[in-house]
This record gives sequence, C-alpha cells and structure tokens, in this order.
Amino acid sequence: MKLYQSSGSPNSRRVRIYLAEKGITMSVVPVDLGGGEQFSEAYAAINPRRVVPALVLDDGSTIGEVPAIIRYLEETHPNLPLLGDTPKEKAVIAMWERRMEQEGFAAVMETVRNGASGLKGRAIAGPHGYDQIPELVERGRRRIANFYGDLETRLAEAPFIAGYQFSVADITAVVAIDFATNALSLSIPAENVASKRWYDSVTSRPSMSF
Amino acid sequence: MKLYQSSGSPNSRRVRIYLAEKGITMSVVPVDLGGGEQFSEAYAAINPRRVVPALVLDDGSTIGEVPAIIRYLEETHPNLPLLGDTPKEKAVIAMWERRMEQEGFAAVMETVRNGASGLKGRAIAGPHGYDQIPELVERGRRRIANFYGDLETRLAEAPFIAGYQFSVADITAVVAIDFATNALSLSIPAENVASKRWYDSVTSRPSMSF
Repeated sequence: MKLYQSSGSPNSRRVRIYLAEKGITMSVVPVDLGGGEQFSEAYAAINPRRVVPALVLDDGSTIGEVPAIIRYLEETHPNLPLLGDTPKEKAVIAMWERRMEQEGFAAVMETVRNGASGLKGRAIAGPHGYDQIPELVERGRRRIANFYGDLETRLAEAPFIAGYQFSVADITAVVAIDFATNALSLSIPAENVASKRWYDSVTSRPSMSF
Repeated sequence: MKLYQSSGSPNSRRVRIYLAEKGITMSVVPVDLGGGEQFSEAYAAINPRRVVPALVLDDGSTIGEVPAIIRYLEETHPNLPLLGDTPKEKAVIAMWERRMEQEGFAAVMETVRNGASGLKGRAIAGPHGYDQIPELVERGRRRIANFYGDLETRLAEAPFIAGYQFSVADITAVVAIDFATNALSLSIPAENVASKRWYDSVTSRPSMSF
C-alpha cells in the first residue's frame, strides 16, 4: 500500500492521525499541492479527482475519499477500532463523524477556499473550476460559530464526540478546528469549557502531532 | 426500530429504496416537512438536527444521517450486501457513494435550497437558519452539468457506479438525478447513452418505486 498525501492538506492529516493511532506504517508519497502536482497527468492517472489523499492498494487500484480510505484500513486492521465495534457503535460513530465533517470540516474548507487568494477559480476541490463567492466566506464564519456552539452542547454531555470512546469523529473535529484556527484565526471560543477540556485531552495524544 | 421520514424527502427515499432492496420492514412514522413538523419540540427530542430521516432503535437511541442509518441496517442485515463484501469492495463502494453524494446529491440539494421560495432562510438543512445565495443556484446548475459529464465517463467503463454490482452508490445517484429532474428540470442529457442505459436498467428494479 502507498499513501499519496500532502503535509499541508487537512484531509491528508485525518489519515495520518488515523494511521498513527492504529500503528499502521506504509509508504508515503508527497504530492506538491502548492506546485499544482495534483493536476499533473501522472497524478490524474492515480486519482482522476485530482485531490489528496489517495490510497493505492497492492493490486494497483486507488481508493480516494478519506472515509473510504479509513474504511479499508479499519476492515484490514480491526484492532483498536476507531469506527466502532458493535453495529450500534458503528452507526453512532458514523453519524457523529458525518456531522463533524459537514458542519465543521466542510464549513472551514468552504470558508478558506472561497477567500484565499491562491485558490481563485478553485473554490471547490476537484477537477472542475469554480469561482470564489465572497458571500460564502461570511456565511462560513457563521457556520463555524454554529459548529462551535453545537460542539460545546455535545461535549458538555459526553467525554468524546461519539460518546465514551475516542473515534474518527474526534480526529475529524480536531483537524477542522486546527485548520480554522490556523487559516482563519477562528479557534474554540474561550467560554466553551467543555470543548476546551476535550480539545486539550485529545490533542495530548501522540498521534495528533502527525 | 422505527423510521421517521417524509415521502417528499430525497434523503428519506435513499433509505426507503435500501429497505426495499434488502426486504427489511419496520414501522414508518411520517414527518410533515411542509407543515414544519421537523422544527417541533417533539421531533427535536428525537433528532436535534431537525432533519429526516432518523432511525430510532429499540433501546430508544436515534441514528441520524443516511449513511449511518444504512451502516446500522447493513451490519444487522448482512444478506444481499449493498455496501460491499470484501474490504476492497467496501472501500470502493464507500468512495463512489461519497462522490455521488458530494458531486451529485449535494449539488442538487444546494441548487434547490438556494432557489426555492418556500426555503427562504433555510438554505442549509438543520437547526440554523441561513439566507439563500442566488449565485449558488447558478453555480449549482454548473455543478450538476459536471456531475452528469463525470457520470457518463464512469458508466462508459462500468455497468454500475461502483463497478460490477448494484450498490448504495447507485441508489444515491438515482435519487439525486430524479430530484434534479423533478425539481430543476435537469435530467440526464440525451447524448449520455451510457448513463441512460444504466438509469433505465437500475430504475426498473421494484425498489425504485419507493
């Protein structure tokens, strides 16, 4: 197996943290997003969607999309489950991971992609060009504020996002928050004490430095 | 188990088709979206995200989000797998289902929600109000055109979206296409012969009338 990824890509970081948590090692191939390597013919042959990360299996086939990559790795490395163990755990974690993705991660990405001067004409990741829409930056900031509010409600009732165990939902939320903090200066509001307690706890895990 | 859903909701239809394919029966509780029942206190107690569908388990806990609901049902009803059987199949189907969701289903929903007069102030589903952004209607039409183009490329090389077997990726794509056709008059372009062959074939399945 080989993982194509970029050190600055939040989606790549989700997979790197997952691999570190599971203790899985594999060849890692850097893709130079700043230099536009994802749009090269060579990379398009690996992942026609022209995004990272992408996992290339030993038979040469490519798995794209973070949840699909993680599903493959979890099926082949079931120890220390991060997608849950029982049917109910799997469903609850899938539900929360999706909320962290759609309400957190996607909101942050939309805000960054519609505002960054280096991403003009590329407001949506992938092979098709889309112009930036400035109203999405302003809306994105409100979406992130709502995300932080909802996160606080959740973490006041449970130690981890999906309940009583660390899971991929926590990974996705941390990556979204760190990207919002670094790219938009939108960190967890100081008064959100449950979120801060959770953030300090989960980011002390060695995997989070990946 | 009890499924809260609405007959006019495309996300509910994804679950209804899945249930019909698997031969799973359960209590179905209609939620009156036109009358705003999803915003009632009674429904918020079932699903605080205030969206349908939601699956309530026998222990009273709620699973929201279509992929999480389907994951639960697939784990508890493994016969006739629609999420794949081997680790690789599971990953390939997860990858394609996600593309159908993000590039097809989400593009159609965004276009409809930002243009429909009855959805003013509710451009994003869920508990938080967001104003419509007219530019997203125009962008959405281009996203759907790109989706149809990419779908044609894919279906010229494989009989089903995820390869050689019918899967949830086909369900999500059909629901997105039917909603684009009905709500936006954007059906599969006449020249997309591979897509039309696939569409005619999959929509002849009895499950598709649900």
